[in-house]
Amino acid sequence: MSSSSPSPETPVVNAEVLREVIKVQPFTRWTGLEILKAEDGEVITRLELRKDDMTQHHGFLHGGLVGFLADNAAAYAAATRVGDVVTSQFTLNFLSPGVGDAFRAHAQVVKAGQRQVVVRVDIIAEQEADEKLIAIAQATILPAGER
Amino acid sequence: MSSSSPSPETPVVNAEVLREVIKVQPFTRWTGLEILKAEDGEVITRLELRKDDMTQHHGFLHGGLVGFLADNAAAYAAATRVGDVVTSQFTLNFLSPGVGDAFRAHAQVVKAGQRQVVVRVDIIAEQEADEKLIAIAQATILPAGER
Amino acid sequence: MSSSSPSPETPVVNAEVLREVIKVQPFTRWTGLEILKAEDGEVITRLELRKDDMTQHHGFLHGGLVGFLADNAAAYAAATRVGDVVTSQFTLNFLSPGVGDAFRAHAQVVKAGQRQVVVRVDIIAEQEADEKLIAIAQATILPAGER
Amino acid sequence: MSSSSPSPETPVVNAEVLREVIKVQPFTRWTGLEILKAEDGEVITRLELRKDDMTQHHGFLHGGLVGFLADNAAAYAAATRVGDVVTSQFTLNFLSPGVGDAFRAHAQVVKAGQRQVVVRVDIIAEQEADEKLIAIAQATILPAGER
Repeated sequence: MSSSSPSPETPVVNAEVLREVIKVQPFTRWTGLEILKAEDGEVITRLELRKDDMTQHHGFLHGGLVGFLADNAAAYAAATRVGDVVTSQFTLNFLSPGVGDAFRAHAQVVKAGQRQVVVRVDIIAEQEADEKLIAIAQATILPAGER
Repeated sequence: MSSSSPSPETPVVNAEVLREVIKVQPFTRWTGLEILKAEDGEVITRLELRKDDMTQHHGFLHGGLVGFLADNAAAYAAATRVGDVVTSQFTLNFLSPGVGDAFRAHAQVVKAGQRQVVVRVDIIAEQEADEKLIAIAQATILPAGER
Repeated sequence: MSSSSPSPETPVVNAEVLREVIKVQPFTRWTGLEILKAEDGEVITRLELRKDDMTQHHGFLHGGLVGFLADNAAAYAAATRVGDVVTSQFTLNFLSPGVGDAFRAHAQVVKAGQRQVVVRVDIIAEQEADEKLIAIAQATILPAGER
Repeated sequence: MSSSSPSPETPVVNAEVLREVIKVQPFTRWTGLEILKAEDGEVITRLELRKDDMTQHHGFLHGGLVGFLADNAAAYAAATRVGDVVTSQFTLNFLSPGVGDAFRAHAQVVKAGQRQVVVRVDIIAEQEADEKLIAIAQATILPAGER
């Protein structure tokens, strides 16, 4: 299951591949999401807040985009292990308002099995020199080849 | 707890109020979300797909926006019962790809208590004359006044 | 996928089969769980409260057994559609304390796909002539043959 | 919010207190659950498998008891921070079958707020000298005093 010696059926998905994927995903491209890391079950993504179209009424990152960050990073982390995937489900707990200039999702595969990949995600707000954990998620991702 | 005779502390939130709320929520406004119904614990919202900035690589509605629809409708439904709210958590199960021209979220409050409001949501894709249930969610919403 | 004309690979699981399954599941047998209905994606189970070993400190049904009822009924409901299964995950929201003499789980398959079955469950407390919805759940079940 | 200098309204819950709590919780007592650690938002519990009444048909720990371990440890961990609590919801992902002689739940509070405490839990199987992560959970716990 390791991405270090993939079979031809489970091509390696890495940061470079994901950057190409984003170019053909209009919504993800719209968000301006960057891939900071993507290897061996771990993914870190980053989103810079645009006040004019990403916020809720207090000027914080909208919860819908917190959910996007979690879901997206979980799927990308699973893809570094098993190639093409679809998301089965995710659970998101909001801890604090999305106050920040930028936001990172840190996703870590907990278990990559034949039929499902389980991932945990932390969503972290960056504000000047500070960082704050604002949401956590748990996701179930399915290898697309098994559909 | 019924919105038919609210106390001054829990002002009624209805479709008209929510349409005003959307105007000051830049991300929701960006989505073009419409409020079709919002009363007594039930909310129906609708999103028209814009292919150029709302899709994933197959041209389907991006999962992040399915999550937005679920989260948003759950919070709005809770607000029709208890006024101002914050989302604690939600769980989203994807059933089918987001194939459609427009998408509706149907949210129904299951229980509105003093400290939490629990909501179920169905996400339905509209394609020409057809409809399809594409995702379901379960959410926990907290009355903001209790924070 | 319908259980009305199963292929040899997905044998029908019905109430009679589930009653035999319970006999070889020591924990479920310990609970005294009854199968009231099990067909075509719908399962109803029932548990009679034993005050001396099923309760928490207020004499209500312990939350662990509310979780058992939800998880178990979801898996059984999926099995009526796809045969042998394993549970991937479930989310349980508690609405009210487990006050009652007996408890029923009503599980309904929302979508039975090739790779996953998604189920919603209601947990209902019976107390004398009254009934009350005390918890709701949403579960993801995997066909065991796909493991 | 720290348990090191609690206000009179949020009495410290520690391992000693939890052992007394278990004595008056008939279901938890029935499981034989031990408290290995309970302080400052972290709880470790342990359950020894009894083959004759805790298993499913393969002799593994029944999923209902995996759920119990997760739910219970999450609530206890929250109680070390905020005193008396009720569980709002939890999400459980099963990673591997419950093969083992004993099982531990490791619960860690991620955020303890005024209105909700969010907890992550790992469920670990012990088999002879080996250990294996078999399930993970994420829970939302409410301070009971706020009800």
